[in-house]
Amino acid sequence: MRENRLRTIWQNGGAVLNSWLALPSSFSAETMAHQGWDSLVVDLQHGLIDYAQMVTMLQAISTTATVPIVRVPWLEPGIIMKSLDAGAYAVICPMVNTADDAARLVAYTRYAPQGTRSFGPIRASLYGGPDYAQKANETIVAFAMIETKQALDNLDSILSVDGIEAVYIGPSDLSLALGCRPVFDDVDPPVAEALAHILARCKAHGVKCGVHNGLAEVAKARIAQGFDFVTVSSDARMIASGSQALLKTLKS
Amino acid sequence: MRENRLRTIWQNGGAVLNSWLALPSSFSAETMAHQGWDSLVVDLQHGLIDYAQMVTMLQAISTTATVPIVRVPWLEPGIIMKSLDAGAYAVICPMVNTADDAARLVAYTRYAPQGTRSFGPIRASLYGGPDYAQKANETIVAFAMIETKQALDNLDSILSVDGIEAVYIGPSDLSLALGCRPVFDDVDPPVAEALAHILARCKAHGVKCGVHNGLAEVAKARIAQGFDFVTVSSDARMIASGSQALLKTLKS
Amino acid sequence: MRENRLRTIWQNGGAVLNSWLALPSSFSAETMAHQGWDSLVVDLQHGLIDYAQMVTMLQAISTTATVPIVRVPWLEPGIIMKSLDAGAYAVICPMVNTADDAARLVAYTRYAPQGTRSFGPIRASLYGGPDYAQKANETIVAFAMIETKQALDNLDSILSVDGIEAVYIGPSDLSLALGCRPVFDDVDPPVAEALAHILARCKAHGVKCGVHNGLAEVAKARIAQGFDFVTVSSDARMIASGSQALLKTLKS
Amino acid sequence: MRENRLRTIWQNGGAVLNSWLALPSSFSAETMAHQGWDSLVVDLQHGLIDYAQMVTMLQAISTTATVPIVRVPWLEPGIIMKSLDAGAYAVICPMVNTADDAARLVAYTRYAPQGTRSFGPIRASLYGGPDYAQKANETIVAFAMIETKQALDNLDSILSVDGIEAVYIGPSDLSLALGCRPVFDDVDPPVAEALAHILARCKAHGVKCGVHNGLAEVAKARIAQGFDFVTVSSDARMIASGSQALLKTLKS
Amino acid sequence: MRENRLRTIWQNGGAVLNSWLALPSSFSAETMAHQGWDSLVVDLQHGLIDYAQMVTMLQAISTTATVPIVRVPWLEPGIIMKSLDAGAYAVICPMVNTADDAARLVAYTRYAPQGTRSFGPIRASLYGGPDYAQKANETIVAFAMIETKQALDNLDSILSVDGIEAVYIGPSDLSLALGCRPVFDDVDPPVAEALAHILARCKAHGVKCGVHNGLAEVAKARIAQGFDFVTVSSDARMIASGSQALLKTLKS
Amino acid sequence: MRENRLRTIWQNGGAVLNSWLALPSSFSAETMAHQGWDSLVVDLQHGLIDYAQMVTMLQAISTTATVPIVRVPWLEPGIIMKSLDAGAYAVICPMVNTADDAARLVAYTRYAPQGTRSFGPIRASLYGGPDYAQKANETIVAFAMIETKQALDNLDSILSVDGIEAVYIGPSDLSLALGCRPVFDDVDPPVAEALAHILARCKAHGVKCGVHNGLAEVAKARIAQGFDFVTVSSDARMIASGSQALLKTLKS
Repeated sequence: MRENRLRTIWQNGGAVLNSWLALPSSFSAETMAHQGWDSLVVDLQHGLIDYAQMVTMLQAISTTATVPIVRVPWLEPGIIMKSLDAGAYAVICPMVNTADDAARLVAYTRYAPQGTRSFGPIRASLYGGPDYAQKANETIVAFAMIETKQALDNLDSILSVDGIEAVYIGPSDLSLALGCRPVFDDVDPPVAEALAHILARCKAHGVKCGVHNGLAEVAKARIAQGFDFVTVSSDARMIASGSQALLKTLKS
Repeated sequence: MRENRLRTIWQNGGAVLNSWLALPSSFSAETMAHQGWDSLVVDLQHGLIDYAQMVTMLQAISTTATVPIVRVPWLEPGIIMKSLDAGAYAVICPMVNTADDAARLVAYTRYAPQGTRSFGPIRASLYGGPDYAQKANETIVAFAMIETKQALDNLDSILSVDGIEAVYIGPSDLSLALGCRPVFDDVDPPVAEALAHILARCKAHGVKCGVHNGLAEVAKARIAQGFDFVTVSSDARMIASGSQALLKTLKS
Repeated sequence: MRENRLRTIWQNGGAVLNSWLALPSSFSAETMAHQGWDSLVVDLQHGLIDYAQMVTMLQAISTTATVPIVRVPWLEPGIIMKSLDAGAYAVICPMVNTADDAARLVAYTRYAPQGTRSFGPIRASLYGGPDYAQKANETIVAFAMIETKQALDNLDSILSVDGIEAVYIGPSDLSLALGCRPVFDDVDPPVAEALAHILARCKAHGVKCGVHNGLAEVAKARIAQGFDFVTVSSDARMIASGSQALLKTLKS
Repeated sequence: MRENRLRTIWQNGGAVLNSWLALPSSFSAETMAHQGWDSLVVDLQHGLIDYAQMVTMLQAISTTATVPIVRVPWLEPGIIMKSLDAGAYAVICPMVNTADDAARLVAYTRYAPQGTRSFGPIRASLYGGPDYAQKANETIVAFAMIETKQALDNLDSILSVDGIEAVYIGPSDLSLALGCRPVFDDVDPPVAEALAHILARCKAHGVKCGVHNGLAEVAKARIAQGFDFVTVSSDARMIASGSQALLKTLKS
Repeated sequence: MRENRLRTIWQNGGAVLNSWLALPSSFSAETMAHQGWDSLVVDLQHGLIDYAQMVTMLQAISTTATVPIVRVPWLEPGIIMKSLDAGAYAVICPMVNTADDAARLVAYTRYAPQGTRSFGPIRASLYGGPDYAQKANETIVAFAMIETKQALDNLDSILSVDGIEAVYIGPSDLSLALGCRPVFDDVDPPVAEALAHILARCKAHGVKCGVHNGLAEVAKARIAQGFDFVTVSSDARMIASGSQALLKTLKS
Repeated sequence: MRENRLRTIWQNGGAVLNSWLALPSSFSAETMAHQGWDSLVVDLQHGLIDYAQMVTMLQAISTTATVPIVRVPWLEPGIIMKSLDAGAYAVICPMVNTADDAARLVAYTRYAPQGTRSFGPIRASLYGGPDYAQKANETIVAFAMIETKQALDNLDSILSVDGIEAVYIGPSDLSLALGCRPVFDDVDPPVAEALAHILARCKAHGVKCGVHNGLAEVAKARIAQGFDFVTVSSDARMIASGSQALLKTLKS
């Protein structure tokens, strides 16, 4: 089975440089994949993307060595399993708030006996290889999103769930949960504390920790802080900020 | 943030004139939006429409002042939040049968601390404006559908849920629930009574009340009866009834 | 091979009752096909429809006995042959202005030796049957549109071209060509004269004559006048006029 | 209402010859439907197909007498009801593990008073006929998939649920559940025993029993064994195995 | 009819700030349109976009005041007229190499008697207004691309064609034509001379002159040089260059 | 620039094993590409495929080493250039009947000074590499289809056109042109003679010669006969013939 470069990078002590796809287009996905990102997330939750568009985006990413990841809209078995069958090598699942949520996430992403994932890796076996059935459980990565007050309260029990190997933090939802402004980078102090706390508990549990960022400088600082996976910007943001910069020059 | 004209019309004591989109086409949506309806519902439940098609339909409606509404397929957080992120200014949710259902609907459509909606208004902030995060909770409208025997039994507790501001009645499902023929307009007496009862309880609770209709005359009578939001016909029905009328003339 | 009901109706001395598809949707096409029209035109010229959408619309029409017709965007062999391969049983071709244009239209729609249509009836043979190759030339109908001053001047030479069996008149383009208002029904006198003239010359040449109409009453009068094929309204028009009628009642 | 040929075949004592659609294409669906299969399953679970593509595939199947079936991704009311509204004459539902699951499946697929299916058969009434509302409950077939250890343990209680008329077995998932290799045809002995056991209990309860197969020879043996519905291969598999056979000849 | 802001800007002595859409996505188009560009070009020639995707992109642009323009793939009447019918307020046509080419471009974009555009502004009249038929000829702008040696040789005769109001220069094709490297900004001296020559002849003929650029600084200099319409970058380039900049920071 | 394996195979004295894509699906394309074909043709002429679907199919093929080829619908510069910009490494062009046709095909597929291809290799440079502009002319292959009586008459002048490196024969069209039955494999004697004649003239001119086949045995014989490129079957045919074989077994 094709290796999961997320695991390889982590085994080598590195941090994954990830970006984000919110545009429903296989060509923007392919263009992004050719720029050198370690991985790309097809965002089915807040991106304007649905399953059929995701499939063509995963195909486009597969023309390169970039790792294809899907953020699913919710902790719902149908779409999680469909994303994996379509060839996602990792899923990021929103709103994992309890140990029970975490256990369900593990179950939905693993074949029996570790889980209850239904068998039918229709495109995954084209992408991963003919031994997909044997090696998928040890190859696929499931990220549990920690982004609510409840998840913070249950953090240690979530991180203790067998099979939880990685978490992902969305600073804007975490900020809302803590009564702060919904931003990515310049977070309020309670959010900064929460981020540091989650990272520390992940290290204690041997769980990888990822975080969403807007700016490259902030992402770089997060790596220095110990984060294992950093997202920077998105295709849609690059279009907006790129246009703003060009128009500023033109009108200056 | 762009105003929600549903609220403006209601504040002015008026009733919303709404129609329905069952065809999966951004062009039929744009054509309908140019005719002068106050609002249009993209029907993800019984319309032949899915999320990706809905996005282009919401864009098409946004070329006019018509309010974009989505009826979601079910009380499921993934699609409710995706519809709002895509720019729906109201959602209609089927089968709200208990106070707990109603509380979940409120939670899924409001940001913390009032609810648990996840943050990422990717198109909604283009449509609504940069202050979407601050004002969405007071702008978006969530309609709870009252259409089962169980919902009728729980009506007062549903209407008492904090954040329930509007209900919507589908006479055909309500008819089936009461053992009557599934029709929109010419409802059987038990359904007529149920409609009047729901309207009365809404008035008592200060909740807006909407209803689905086939014919304009019936909708007009519903407004006179006190309903705050009336749907008339749909794009698919206009094509069918329009063709029938033309063929009748041709063959006469 | 499945019969072409256009030919059957004409052999029985009848006129074809046709409507028009401008919405790019297989479901509106299927809904229209279930209303009882003899035939439906998928309009690739002025409808908002392209080839891939046309294919699903032809499939939808094929669930009924309604004859599938395509109006192509231009006298261009690529799209004419693709429309036939996809199962159209007739094509309407705009702007046939000379005998040479007419001869090219015949050539593009017939297999050798009568024409130069390339062989590959991929869906047409599913729809038409396994003997499609043998019988297509005598089954398919090609309509040449007469809608310019130049076409009027060349009318008899166009109608004399071997293989030209039917023409179609778009009154709005014909009106523009004659310096009149671009309307369908209530045409200016020079257009009315031109229509009568074209019809008379068609009768003289044994060529079938079709015409575009907005209203059923006008179409009915055209049949009485001798036209063999009348179009009435379109899916998009039914949505617009249907909405206008409903809103008028609601606001009265 | 158009008959459900599954029921007709069963009433005549026959077994249904079914194949499988994993490619998201209305044209592959139409091509398959023209080959003479009794029924075809549009696989929304492990096929690379979503709802909007399914709609065009159901339309394509409807150009023939082949019965359109949908395998839904999960026991979730939104997509089950949308599949039926779009004209599926049967649904196959994965992972029905308890009597409660089975009761929910029955409820989601039947109108009141037998179930809670919401009313709006938008395309189903085009396909089925104007009396769809009256006859859908007795026409539509719901298959419960028996494919886990838990389902085996609960088999008799599942088969006893009022309205459960058919089950479907996926040998690969059942194999994983029993600690065996995930294959279709050449199953390990414990799986073979489980298959025989399920079939026997179905016969005892008067429930129809279907099974997934790769090879025609195996399917034929299953019919001889008493199965009522056999799936053979899929469009995607025919492309892969067809190519392998051709290349073997070319390179020999 | 809605004004064409290109003409308004030009009447006020300004230059149009334009950007470019190569991604086939209505959401990237809408995001771009919200950034404040005067106009946006949907590129059907070298962008990965076809007609059906263009329609949704024109709708998305129409949610703002940005002027929608289409670059067609070739001087072919079918797609030129379809683009205008879909609501484009200007078309850019490649490879206009002779006065005859220029005359055909004028003809295809104007209604009779000035041209031969076929009548059917199906979406254009929704976007432009009910008086579209009367005012389209004086509102729509057609850009003829000057990008070959032949076009340079015929420049004055092209610019003399009645109805040619604007030209557009693609420096990369012009460079290839002159035996130079195909670049946008840092053009070789013969290309710089040709650009200056075309601009001078346009001024002499009273024809507006546009030019494609990569960098904002170059575009700004082009405005200072007298160009009336400058394109800067594209959505696809912003994604690529944005990613490159972010990765450079991350890896520094 | 990525090598064109067609040229590599030919330089090594081999014949290219090619198959055909008529289904508009990126997943069937990807499945076919994983089976080991040297190249695959996306058929825009007789396949049910248009440009936008072709793009996702080229992306899917690019996940493997299989060479992506496009058969365009007609000798029309717009679609030929769009196919190349999207990353096709060869085009097959129907109905090249004269030396002038052949010269136009060469011109449309080469940059200046050898041709008039417009510059904008938007996806081609992602697929081919950053030196695409420099090496495209010597990498891309253009196949001229010889399939009419006229082309046979002009064969030597066509093969003498500078830049014509390959021809492709469609036996069914050639058969029609010669008054024979339109078949692929079991051609009538005049067609067999014509095939041998074309092959001999190609050898004389140093032009590669390809041919369409249905069966692998026939293709193998064609290679032995000296053909350089053989097509076998198609995705759609494999589905049809695969189903027929399975049903025969089931019903035996």
